[in-house]
Amino acid sequence: MTIYDISEKAGVSIATVSRVLNGSSNVSEKTKKKVLDVINRYEYTPNAFARGLGLNTMKTIGIMCADSSDLYLAKAIYYIEQKLRANGYDSILCCTGYELEAKMSSMNLLITKKVDGIILVGSNFIYEKDSDNKYIADAATQVPVMLLNADLDAPNIYSVVSDDFTSMYEATLQMIDTGINDILYFYNSTSYSGKRKLAGYRAAMEERKLLTGGNLMQFYHGSHEDIPAMTEHLKKLRRKGVQFHGVIAADDTLALASVKYARETGYRVPEDISILGYNNSMLVNCCNPELTSIDNKLDTLCQHLITTLLGVLDGKEMPKKTVFSGEIVKRGTTR
Amino acid sequence: MTIYDISEKAGVSIATVSRVLNGSSNVSEKTKKKVLDVINRYEYTPNAFARGLGLNTMKTIGIMCADSSDLYLAKAIYYIEQKLRANGYDSILCCTGYELEAKMSSMNLLITKKVDGIILVGSNFIYEKDSDNKYIADAATQVPVMLLNADLDAPNIYSVVSDDFTSMYEATLQMIDTGINDILYFYNSTSYSGKRKLAGYRAAMEERKLLTGGNLMQFYHGSHEDIPAMTEHLKKLRRKGVQFHGVIAADDTLALASVKYARETGYRVPEDISILGYNNSMLVNCCNPELTSIDNKLDTLCQHLITTLLGVLDGKEMPKKTVFSGEIVKRGTTR
Repeated sequence: MTIYDISEKAGVSIATVSRVLNGSSNVSEKTKKKVLDVINRYEYTPNAFARGLGLNTMKTIGIMCADSSDLYLAKAIYYIEQKLRANGYDSILCCTGYELEAKMSSMNLLITKKVDGIILVGSNFIYEKDSDNKYIADAATQVPVMLLNADLDAPNIYSVVSDDFTSMYEATLQMIDTGINDILYFYNSTSYSGKRKLAGYRAAMEERKLLTGGNLMQFYHGSHEDIPAMTEHLKKLRRKGVQFHGVIAADDTLALASVKYARETGYRVPEDISILGYNNSMLVNCCNPELTSIDNKLDTLCQHLITTLLGVLDGKEMPKKTVFSGEIVKRGTTR
Repeated sequence: MTIYDISEKAGVSIATVSRVLNGSSNVSEKTKKKVLDVINRYEYTPNAFARGLGLNTMKTIGIMCADSSDLYLAKAIYYIEQKLRANGYDSILCCTGYELEAKMSSMNLLITKKVDGIILVGSNFIYEKDSDNKYIADAATQVPVMLLNADLDAPNIYSVVSDDFTSMYEATLQMIDTGINDILYFYNSTSYSGKRKLAGYRAAMEERKLLTGGNLMQFYHGSHEDIPAMTEHLKKLRRKGVQFHGVIAADDTLALASVKYARETGYRVPEDISILGYNNSMLVNCCNPELTSIDNKLDTLCQHLITTLLGVLDGKEMPKKTVFSGEIVKRGTTR
């Protein structure tokens, strides 16, 4: 499909199609809609197209992440930047924070800077309300948008995700099978990925009829790196009389805080409390015993994301969604 | 000083000055030099000027860092992005890796994207050889360049640094004063900041006549987050018969590895070995006992850097270099 086909099908001039593709404001909403409808109907990738015409190819990819000081996101950015550079692409990163408005503003900035594609790192960019995700679908009418560990169904958007649900489901079953019934789920994010993890834990606990009240699912509100505050959260829980002999944590920091909690309250790990983390980050080696954690294959995910993006930019047919399995890496904090 | 003054002093037209300021290639090297000489002589800030004329103000700052997966750099980026956003600026980040060529390419990219200023995060951008730093001085002829924890003397370049030398010097003296003579210095970077830290340790050890051979200064070559490899480095040292009852580490990760080393070889911390880290990062709470570490006031440094940059962009006179003192935060790993 060429720009001529779009022009013909939409009943507008080639110049108009080009203006729409380039995000010019000098086009009426009605005309713009006609062109975008044709594009969406044929799942056409405007930028690959522009590249074919030798337009707009700055060989630069825009990356967005909520917070580069989050260990997991920082690592993802590192992998992505490395792989882009190895393929001759520059990249520019916007750290948006967690507010929708700032995310929209960064997205606009990247589009203005004429990037060839946009990568959203982490699942904090997708909202419950469809209307809050319009900024992503809108961007995707201009350049391909890649989602790492998130999912959104719209044209020109591609996702690469880790199967967080299954990883957590299996880890929970494994811990139950070591004879622990009161497993605490400790989490601090309700993002797409955060919900999938929680659902995996719930499914396993329900399957074994171990899901009682809400006390065993503990949401931590504070800073994502304040280990003493996380430890205090667990101590408070204990003072309230909540019992648990296992902790499944949604990330390694929370798991590390749980190891600290156990040490400070006189529990042995893993004899009295089993603890499992998530992300298999550098933190797994920081505690004693070392942390059992789920490796969600971030490097593989990032590699696949870049391969998909480069394929899309080359005008190839690429899968809209790819799912990888995680793996439990057993160390000293579980039996 | 106005564009008219520059034009007059350089003996070229205003249009030519403007072309030079905008980095146009359509100017002879000789003419360009004339204009830049005037600009350099008067320490004139082209971009502040362009802003005054209402040109080129995208309200976007370019940020460069070597590696966003380094805890310290990631944190710095987080602070900087936050503070820029609070002041109405967007930012775009390039993670360059550690190769000069990639740094130069990212710098060009940012200039092409018409950013209002460039921030270099961390001291890995400055090289021993002056000619290798030309890319920074060149960029500074176009936009103000801010250095975080690095120093380079050229027009339109501003540095904000932590006094790493004094922090390490005082920490080393303090450890000596607790009765430890064989203090190992454990480091993994020879950047500007890395050298200043090492010099602080050396100065203190020399002052007390404790500096013997090179065995007590150990450079670790591996990945900056591979704690087991760092631990192994220390075990190998012990097998070679090198004795030490104190470790001063150039960052918290190395210090954490030292705590792990002590535990695995049966030494008590701090009774048998005192350990001090650097950066006062989230890692200080990860080990038992918790890590004594040097807080180099990263938040304050970043705040000051942004204030300086905004001042420069407003055409105000701002200090070329600002130095902040660090602070030793005493926890359980030192006596």
